[in-house]
Amino acid sequence: MFTEFCRAFGINLDLALEAREIVRGETEQEVPGVQVDREKYDYAEVTIVKIVEPYAEKLMGKPVGTYITIEAPVIRENNPPAHQEITEILARHLEPFVKLPEYSNILVVGLGNWRATPDSLGPKVCSLTVVTRHLFNYAPQALKEGMRSVSALAPGVLGITGIETAEIIKGVVEKIRPELIITIDALAARNVSRIGTTIQIADTGISPGSGTGNQRAGINRETMGVPVIALGIPTVAHAAVIARDTLDGFLEQLRKSPELYQLSQRLSPGLAQEVINRVLEPFGGNLTVTPKEIDTLIHTAAEIVAGGITMALHPNLTPDEYNFYLH
Amino acid sequence: MFTEFCRAFGINLDLALEAREIVRGETEQEVPGVQVDREKYDYAEVTIVKIVEPYAEKLMGKPVGTYITIEAPVIRENNPPAHQEITEILARHLEPFVKLPEYSNILVVGLGNWRATPDSLGPKVCSLTVVTRHLFNYAPQALKEGMRSVSALAPGVLGITGIETAEIIKGVVEKIRPELIITIDALAARNVSRIGTTIQIADTGISPGSGTGNQRAGINRETMGVPVIALGIPTVAHAAVIARDTLDGFLEQLRKSPELYQLSQRLSPGLAQEVINRVLEPFGGNLTVTPKEIDTLIHTAAEIVAGGITMALHPNLTPDEYNFYLH
Amino acid sequence: MFTEFCRAFGINLDLALEAREIVRGETEQEVPGVQVDREKYDYAEVTIVKIVEPYAEKLMGKPVGTYITIEAPVIRENNPPAHQEITEILARHLEPFVKLPEYSNILVVGLGNWRATPDSLGPKVCSLTVVTRHLFNYAPQALKEGMRSVSALAPGVLGITGIETAEIIKGVVEKIRPELIITIDALAARNVSRIGTTIQIADTGISPGSGTGNQRAGINRETMGVPVIALGIPTVAHAAVIARDTLDGFLEQLRKSPELYQLSQRLSPGLAQEVINRVLEPFGGNLTVTPKEIDTLIHTAAEIVAGGITMALHPNLTPDEYNFYLH
Amino acid sequence: MFTEFCRAFGINLDLALEAREIVRGETEQEVPGVQVDREKYDYAEVTIVKIVEPYAEKLMGKPVGTYITIEAPVIRENNPPAHQEITEILARHLEPFVKLPEYSNILVVGLGNWRATPDSLGPKVCSLTVVTRHLFNYAPQALKEGMRSVSALAPGVLGITGIETAEIIKGVVEKIRPELIITIDALAARNVSRIGTTIQIADTGISPGSGTGNQRAGINRETMGVPVIALGIPTVAHAAVIARDTLDGFLEQLRKSPELYQLSQRLSPGLAQEVINRVLEPFGGNLTVTPKEIDTLIHTAAEIVAGGITMALHPNLTPDEYNFYLH
Repeated sequence: MFTEFCRAFGINLDLALEAREIVRGETEQEVPGVQVDREKYDYAEVTIVKIVEPYAEKLMGKPVGTYITIEAPVIRENNPPAHQEITEILARHLEPFVKLPEYSNILVVGLGNWRATPDSLGPKVCSLTVVTRHLFNYAPQALKEGMRSVSALAPGVLGITGIETAEIIKGVVEKIRPELIITIDALAARNVSRIGTTIQIADTGISPGSGTGNQRAGINRETMGVPVIALGIPTVAHAAVIARDTLDGFLEQLRKSPELYQLSQRLSPGLAQEVINRVLEPFGGNLTVTPKEIDTLIHTAAEIVAGGITMALHPNLTPDEYNFYLH
Repeated sequence: MFTEFCRAFGINLDLALEAREIVRGETEQEVPGVQVDREKYDYAEVTIVKIVEPYAEKLMGKPVGTYITIEAPVIRENNPPAHQEITEILARHLEPFVKLPEYSNILVVGLGNWRATPDSLGPKVCSLTVVTRHLFNYAPQALKEGMRSVSALAPGVLGITGIETAEIIKGVVEKIRPELIITIDALAARNVSRIGTTIQIADTGISPGSGTGNQRAGINRETMGVPVIALGIPTVAHAAVIARDTLDGFLEQLRKSPELYQLSQRLSPGLAQEVINRVLEPFGGNLTVTPKEIDTLIHTAAEIVAGGITMALHPNLTPDEYNFYLH
Repeated sequence: MFTEFCRAFGINLDLALEAREIVRGETEQEVPGVQVDREKYDYAEVTIVKIVEPYAEKLMGKPVGTYITIEAPVIRENNPPAHQEITEILARHLEPFVKLPEYSNILVVGLGNWRATPDSLGPKVCSLTVVTRHLFNYAPQALKEGMRSVSALAPGVLGITGIETAEIIKGVVEKIRPELIITIDALAARNVSRIGTTIQIADTGISPGSGTGNQRAGINRETMGVPVIALGIPTVAHAAVIARDTLDGFLEQLRKSPELYQLSQRLSPGLAQEVINRVLEPFGGNLTVTPKEIDTLIHTAAEIVAGGITMALHPNLTPDEYNFYLH
Repeated sequence: MFTEFCRAFGINLDLALEAREIVRGETEQEVPGVQVDREKYDYAEVTIVKIVEPYAEKLMGKPVGTYITIEAPVIRENNPPAHQEITEILARHLEPFVKLPEYSNILVVGLGNWRATPDSLGPKVCSLTVVTRHLFNYAPQALKEGMRSVSALAPGVLGITGIETAEIIKGVVEKIRPELIITIDALAARNVSRIGTTIQIADTGISPGSGTGNQRAGINRETMGVPVIALGIPTVAHAAVIARDTLDGFLEQLRKSPELYQLSQRLSPGLAQEVINRVLEPFGGNLTVTPKEIDTLIHTAAEIVAGGITMALHPNLTPDEYNFYLH
């Protein structure tokens, strides 16, 4: 039912965790073909959703693969030590994906538009990530033992470049031949509470149509020829979903009273949709919302993501060295 | 009913037009003590709401005075000639308030925080307004016939300065003794469709608690000693209102069917509130939303407002001269 | 003599006009193998330097080709109508290079770093240029008759991406196969008066080592496989050159008096260099300077360059349409 | 001699250290009425110049008072631990000036224009300083033991506000009645090597005509009625000074050789000035230069200054608490 709703409003469920919640609905059963694991930390809960069977792909609307979700509401608080802990949790969960030979090249790709605040997460992460590929080529003496060859690209968005993002990345990939790509993207959440508080790591790369910029072509192993780890943080939510959640909550209350339940059964099935359409009509049903404090939120999220990536790629760097290599 | 809802969620109705809609509810009658006038333009509709009787103040939650609202959805479109028309409509409606002797000083005050995109409208307008007071003092030969003495202040926000905005303005007003103050502020709308499409001009100044920055002290004739014209554009909406509108739309549908009407009558009066609380709980019921394209929207709105103010204050300036005096 | 000085300080002469001035020195003769033409306008002087003979390449330190220089000090003034004229002059001089079949693709490349003000000219021009390639692919109905397929890329700088700029461009070029590349870059001038006042159009592309970002690899027909038009505006000057010009001016004065001239002949040839070294020592002889009002200057220059490019590539656009296609 | 040169070019010597150097010239004697003390640190040298006698005011072009200069070239390097040390040295030298009763209010004033990079130091420091005055008024429970009541104001510049900066500050001071004002300003240095490497603390406040924004009215105890500590960092240098230093260096070399000395004696006294005029003519002799990496430099300097001020005003804050109170 919700999946139909999403389709009606062109909503893509970027988070596997949310897709799973919806597919499960109110049942207690796991989605068939899906495995789930959980880890608890002081400031975060990590859920690892594995879509293992091809038939689960269709149910979940997401390709077979591993989706790690770090839920940490503390990211929205002003709590530097907790942010440091989240950074380390992120680094630890990235590490298995970056176990590559020493000579490997890794390309970090910051998707999105640096001139539109809610969509600027990716480019900001690029500028906060320690990049070293040029040092390997031109100044190897400036490198510390154990650093990897890392490059970073912020390809911009279709509306500004006129070029499919995937084409730009593919062109660069064919030149520099990385062994691994890590993308960073601003996502859309179904649930407003996830904005700026949830980090998803997916080893499936990016499917067509996902992210706030709505990539038209996929950025994944099929299109790029190398593994693609997709890192995302929701920065917007669909207003349609706020409306929907309200109605759902309302109907749920109705169902608690036997006689109201009976009456509610007589509601026409399309009524909810119709009402939501009318409320959101002025924006063509396409209102994406973002919290008022979006500037601060993007800044903090970018610091955590860039810190986690840098820690995973250059595990020997001290915090001072991290600052030093960032210019 | 809605006013109670607003109170419950700490929502201030910044737009007199919206306050009037709510007070009237579904009746066709004008609010007592209120007069309304309308003008139609190609790209805009102007509504002039006059709160004339003191007893209407309480009903409307706004002080006695004139509230001019320019509704122009075209502001959100990419249509420069239409924006020029809106700028002129704004200038024309500002003019009656700036009919002052030639020697008069006018102080433009850009409220809000220039480091938080949705709240940066006021400071941006300041930097796009043609300021001349220093030329009167130091370089009168640089002035064109008929220019007025205009100054501009962006006092910042309490959280960043530690000082009440009204205190800063009052301090400056006592030094430079303007005959008129024009404030610009980002507002919160009840209706998402008003974000970036509605300009309000109020001759009442700013009441305590209004605007997105929630001024604690008023900025008006009482506190400043001179007339204060408040210019505002909604840049955010309360998520609670989206939820509320959805429920209202739903209940309205119920009431259309006789038997479902019966159902709606049995609902407990607090149910709607309770449901909304639960949906918005993760943000403490205090989620303010803003469209994803907020950067562009603020930029366009600031250009229109600064253009309109400049046109009203320096009516003889040509567009080229406007650009020239902006540095 | 000056060329030795440049070599000593690692100064690259980005402007052909300046290279020519230096090679000619005080002689009145044209540099052999070089042809020069001049056009006068109200607000600008255009000089067309053609390096026609291969032996002139070495003399000039620039490859055989055409270098058009628009000198317009008015760019630094606050004079919108004059800026419009410069934009048109630029468009007119770009046109011969963009006489391509209708189906042609053109790639605009904004070199430089958008996070460092004096180096941000290229990326800013990208964001102000009307890009249409995606419309040809996805929304041809949105195009106006006679528009060309234009894309734009801001590849970043080596220190931030870890990737040679030329590699990124080459990768993208191999994907999208443009018929022409237009690069925009911030240049270094020898003469401070050229900062923000001179536009150079060169049909030779970009040689290794030029521009303020000091490209390591060339971006030209050899490396890219298609013609490359390089558009540049100086935004910095070498402090060493200010020092040098001062000494030269001083020595010139000495030479006017016969007896002082005689004495000045006894100066050791390396003395000037030594003195300059000492003055600029604190910055390793590598001080690049930029005017204090650099933010405004970059903004104006970017508007003129993007306007000129757009006018040349989409000659039928009206100013309103230009604004419309920019989002 | 140099002071005449400064007058000719409208150069104000913002740094007392430089004024002293010039007044002393090549003599080894201290300027009469001036006392000097020195401290050495790993990464910095601190010079305390006290102008004690009124007759020294005229010689030095600066009012009687204490001028502490922290010279730390490491600020321009990418060395976070060294920056931390400079921050602490700054805090320690501010402390004697902020020995005030517990209930005291302190107003931090960030002079300059946040929209012009080289002039944005002051406003940036404001936004990085821990401000608490509003917490004392509205949320005392959020305060930590020993915090002072601090407010911050970025009044803008005359060209943008139309109001004398001193008028704005005075107006606010009369409202909030601080016991101490600390101003932060971007300065102009005579010597390019001081840009971004030197911090001056002066207990004399700001004299008319100083700073890069060239205040017209003083901001000091006379005008404000309370002590004013002026904190400044050079972010620009006068190009005229680069030219001048070159000529001086050259003439110094001449004087070393007996026969060339003779030459130098015959030069007309105005020759140097004339030559410099000609070199800098295109900018009306008024070229102010700034290093190309100005964005990074301003950022680092603002962090150090805001850190030092916060440490001096709230001595009990830990680094994590510092981040917490900054929003």
